[in-house]
Amino acid sequence: MRVALIGAGAIGLYFGGKLQQAGCDVQFLLRRDYSKLKANGLQVYSPRGDFYLKEIQAVRDVREMHPVDLILVCLKTTGNQHYKTLISPIINKNTAILTLQNGLGNEEELAELFGAKRVLGGVAYICVNRGDCGTVHHLATGYIKIGAFLGGESRLCQEISEIFSRVSVPCDVVTDIKKARWEKLIWNITFNGLCALSGQTTKALMNHKGIRADIEAIMKEILTAGNAQNLSEPIQESFIESMLAITDKEIGDYRPSMMIDRMNGNALELHALFKNPLTAAAEKSVEMPRVHLLYNLLALGDSFSKSPL
Amino acid sequence: MRVALIGAGAIGLYFGGKLQQAGCDVQFLLRRDYSKLKANGLQVYSPRGDFYLKEIQAVRDVREMHPVDLILVCLKTTGNQHYKTLISPIINKNTAILTLQNGLGNEEELAELFGAKRVLGGVAYICVNRGDCGTVHHLATGYIKIGAFLGGESRLCQEISEIFSRVSVPCDVVTDIKKARWEKLIWNITFNGLCALSGQTTKALMNHKGIRADIEAIMKEILTAGNAQNLSEPIQESFIESMLAITDKEIGDYRPSMMIDRMNGNALELHALFKNPLTAAAEKSVEMPRVHLLYNLLALGDSFSKSPL
Repeated sequence: MRVALIGAGAIGLYFGGKLQQAGCDVQFLLRRDYSKLKANGLQVYSPRGDFYLKEIQAVRDVREMHPVDLILVCLKTTGNQHYKTLISPIINKNTAILTLQNGLGNEEELAELFGAKRVLGGVAYICVNRGDCGTVHHLATGYIKIGAFLGGESRLCQEISEIFSRVSVPCDVVTDIKKARWEKLIWNITFNGLCALSGQTTKALMNHKGIRADIEAIMKEILTAGNAQNLSEPIQESFIESMLAITDKEIGDYRPSMMIDRMNGNALELHALFKNPLTAAAEKSVEMPRVHLLYNLLALGDSFSKSPL
Repeated sequence: MRVALIGAGAIGLYFGGKLQQAGCDVQFLLRRDYSKLKANGLQVYSPRGDFYLKEIQAVRDVREMHPVDLILVCLKTTGNQHYKTLISPIINKNTAILTLQNGLGNEEELAELFGAKRVLGGVAYICVNRGDCGTVHHLATGYIKIGAFLGGESRLCQEISEIFSRVSVPCDVVTDIKKARWEKLIWNITFNGLCALSGQTTKALMNHKGIRADIEAIMKEILTAGNAQNLSEPIQESFIESMLAITDKEIGDYRPSMMIDRMNGNALELHALFKNPLTAAAEKSVEMPRVHLLYNLLALGDSFSKSPL
């Protein structure tokens, strides 16, 4: 399978690297780390086994890419306004687009621009940070759920899943990607929000007696809002318990991306992770008072951050 | 009136200075700024007229003080564990104690230690910051409400009010100081919490479109919890409107004390401003979900701050 990776952050480099490791023909669109990765290759440190790709196909301009079967979009969502510029030059009649980005609304934006049939959505449960140029540190967990934006069975999703399974990346194909998105929001909003605001890691939060009730209440708000979105079946409350158990036992002392962004004064993914879910909830007359407060506290601080992308 | 000031922060120096200006015999317990204030006197910059007290009676140890009629307590509440050490040496049968400290629970602690009859409570609505050693910057507003801890009329409160009125400090005597405390908490919890967490001033908050709904919702939580405390009469919802109007028009670009403390890594007044009100609300089965979340987010960050006082 010929793949173009757009958005070579930690997640993009990890999954792009995995696809290349599985035998795919992967082209990486790079900017900051172009020279280093071109010269030195990609090194991934992972509890599932480190791996090193001596040569990667790196381009600095998307127009240098040859046609592909799949565009893997791992852009930070603050850069979604560049979808058109980045994707149009490499798309043809049969090209599919899989977004593994954070939050809500990415599939919808891609469908609007390029047609809904070719759009696949994915959620990645993975703790991964970028190291020095050319290295990626996979810290914990690491599985994905993918599905067609329009729902139902997808032969292409099945194919992608099989490719990932060859390189020990569990990849479930789901028929309701919207449900998978809302499930991931339960963790993502809660810990990105709280860690970013407090400047404390997931471990510090889990070890703090007082905030546990707030964590559970925030997760419940998101679950309730998700279950108002006409999902194929409701998210069970036990999902919250399982997320807390994973955070306790597997994730450990993790700095979610929004925490790192806030500490570095970079733009936060507030639109995809907070604003779109709040809007979707409000459209179903569901209030998320705690999420609303977190959003605005983060938005306040974000007014001084650097420009996106 | 002979007065001992315990807790010579910005508020203590301002009101202690005002009492001296009004002709009271005021002794100041000082530590950090003892030498500077002893040598140079106290300079207050104020929109109501700057004033300068060339000589103040400064002591470094409370045991050097002569007996007084009134102990004015303006300690940061994180130092309340020092009540006994600081107050016992200067108290006699007729000494009254007036606390102008933040939050809830101070009168109760003083009453427990020294008897309820001598305890007066006060709330200060004033924007005041400390400048370089020996200076105080009064920025905006500036009035107090005082009342006997046990409620009802108080001749001493009347006397104090008259003294303050001589030096242009409006001072209302109230018969329900608990109501006055909860009223002030409406502003104090909200803006101390939000400014401390976001690192933004009151003006930045008031100018941010999104957070206005959160501000009002937090204030409403506190008002509801206050009105469950058997007050003499309920706090009206219009009180929230008046606080917002004052914040907009008079307070301007203010850094509440908890914001300054958090920026400096000092202990936060979380017990008096958050924990005690949350406990009082819970005792009446009132939830304050947003206040609870703010409290724990601040408590998380506070775990790395310096020791109190």
